[in-house]
Amino acid sequence: MKTGGNRYGTHRVVEPIGILPQPARIVNNDMSEIWDNEMLIDVIRLNIDSASFHQIKTKLEKKGHAGLEKAFANHIIDLTDRTGKHKNEDTGSGGMLIGTVKELGPNFEMKDKVKVGDKIATLVSLSLTPLKVKKVVKVLLDKDQAEIEGQAILFSSGIYAKLPDDMDENLALSVLDVAGAPAQVERLVKPGDNVVIIGANGKSGILCNAVAKERAGVSGKVIGIVRNEKYFETCRQTGCDEVLLASATDALGIEKVVKEATNGKMADVVVNVVNIEDTEMGSILACKDRGMVYFFSMATSFTKAALGAEGIGADVDMILGNGYAHNHAIISVDLLKRNPVLMKLFKERYTD
Amino acid sequence: MKTGGNRYGTHRVVEPIGILPQPARIVNNDMSEIWDNEMLIDVIRLNIDSASFHQIKTKLEKKGHAGLEKAFANHIIDLTDRTGKHKNEDTGSGGMLIGTVKELGPNFEMKDKVKVGDKIATLVSLSLTPLKVKKVVKVLLDKDQAEIEGQAILFSSGIYAKLPDDMDENLALSVLDVAGAPAQVERLVKPGDNVVIIGANGKSGILCNAVAKERAGVSGKVIGIVRNEKYFETCRQTGCDEVLLASATDALGIEKVVKEATNGKMADVVVNVVNIEDTEMGSILACKDRGMVYFFSMATSFTKAALGAEGIGADVDMILGNGYAHNHAIISVDLLKRNPVLMKLFKERYTD
Repeated sequence: MKTGGNRYGTHRVVEPIGILPQPARIVNNDMSEIWDNEMLIDVIRLNIDSASFHQIKTKLEKKGHAGLEKAFANHIIDLTDRTGKHKNEDTGSGGMLIGTVKELGPNFEMKDKVKVGDKIATLVSLSLTPLKVKKVVKVLLDKDQAEIEGQAILFSSGIYAKLPDDMDENLALSVLDVAGAPAQVERLVKPGDNVVIIGANGKSGILCNAVAKERAGVSGKVIGIVRNEKYFETCRQTGCDEVLLASATDALGIEKVVKEATNGKMADVVVNVVNIEDTEMGSILACKDRGMVYFFSMATSFTKAALGAEGIGADVDMILGNGYAHNHAIISVDLLKRNPVLMKLFKERYTD
Repeated sequence: MKTGGNRYGTHRVVEPIGILPQPARIVNNDMSEIWDNEMLIDVIRLNIDSASFHQIKTKLEKKGHAGLEKAFANHIIDLTDRTGKHKNEDTGSGGMLIGTVKELGPNFEMKDKVKVGDKIATLVSLSLTPLKVKKVVKVLLDKDQAEIEGQAILFSSGIYAKLPDDMDENLALSVLDVAGAPAQVERLVKPGDNVVIIGANGKSGILCNAVAKERAGVSGKVIGIVRNEKYFETCRQTGCDEVLLASATDALGIEKVVKEATNGKMADVVVNVVNIEDTEMGSILACKDRGMVYFFSMATSFTKAALGAEGIGADVDMILGNGYAHNHAIISVDLLKRNPVLMKLFKERYTD
């Protein structure tokens, strides 16, 4: 076993040397001998970040590939062979994986909570995880997932969750993938708040609806924004007091409907969980003076948000979505377990 | 005078239609007849955003232009003729301007505070401000500024500041350009905090040093990080209790020096005010668990910050720098007026 590895994994960075594995272009995915502070994982399934998955799918469709699943599989092999990880080279985002623990270095930091053979989900991004893919078994085009045979490395600072024994593994993977969002919303929303969830029907959206309603309580109001009336019922069932129809990119449209729904007060907290571009201004315009906008979408542009708020003199606090929060895995799994509506939706949508 | 204009200025958006002026590619910069909710300004000087200015300068230098000032002037004319505004097409950022009020529409919202002939600075970004440049008088290559003859439009939602009578206009422009940073730091830092300022010698940096020290007080510690020892003295004079040498892109290097300077406690608040790329991870690693990172640099990447924090399991609150905060103009001008060290530095650096 190799020694002297860094807790953040800089020992595996190939290019450019000296930086951390996430920003790096290429990492070393040699699995023949691990460092003594690493965890080696036999990978079962990749759960690719929604923004990344859709970008790849759209790109391959435009190229006119006959067999989209096959083309996607080739893309996964090519990308991981070239760069040592599944970091989308355009969006910069990754995803997560599930697998079983194959080997544990004696200096891996969180080794006491897990043993060889345990089934786990990594809670750090694929964009920094060394990954070697031997074979793509199946690409699940409607679930942003791929079944593979391969191996991955978790660095010593890397976080993971042991999969719950009483929950289907794909179900657990689906909810853990977006675990940061409900854990952050739990912190931000206070009783009596008006909360606007942009993209309320998505995977993060339905979890956020539920947590926002729990926290805002009967004196608060959770307002979902979706682009199709057929999503109204799901949003209401998961926690929205009101659901509004607007395109996430139509800033003035969003301002108008939120104004009506809040009697001109606007939102105390806006949660942006849509995976498309150009939704910054709608989020800012939905927010009240000195309110808070939480950007969880990987399609958010820093400059568009910063200059957009300044441009219209909007004094709002803008939070950059952090995929990690303490206890986010147990918070999200617990939410699913105690909320039958969410459980049913996740089973329908995200398991085979 | 034309009627029916929108307060955010969507009536001037040419392409793509229906979105706000900031994200728009092209806006209408026809100054022959204004809308009745606009302010028309005779422009004296542009203060181009630091990230934008350096990107343009570097691009022109690479092309090997003999006369850099002339090439820059041509670039300003070309960009504003093509797009109707001075929004850098690569960085997306703008800057601000000073000028005199030429005409005020009767429905301009904040018309009571200003009259025709007053000298003002716009506090919204050039990236959304319709601008027609007749002539570039002078490009101040070392000050990120350009003297021009031309006209600009301020929309009804747009904010501005009347220039103080008792302050040189270029001095005022320089401090107003970064007014958001000290106003936000004033809100974030509490007595006893360890504060790390990355880029402590820059224009925003020296203002942040001063405000951070005022707020952290004698029980707190302000730590400046710079890339050259020759900046140490300036940082100390403006408020830093300690100054450390590290490259802003060297995440592990920053973690190491901040750990030493804080006895392993790390920073309660990290303020990132460097105008270069790949500084997200250093900011995150300098921050304590549940601390706060304030990204004020326009070179910040949303994905790099979001995935970077997740990738190392860092539970820190990341704030997206908003160039606007209530009263930021008077806060920053007041800071300069009552701090002789800052006043001297700003005069030396940013006036002719």
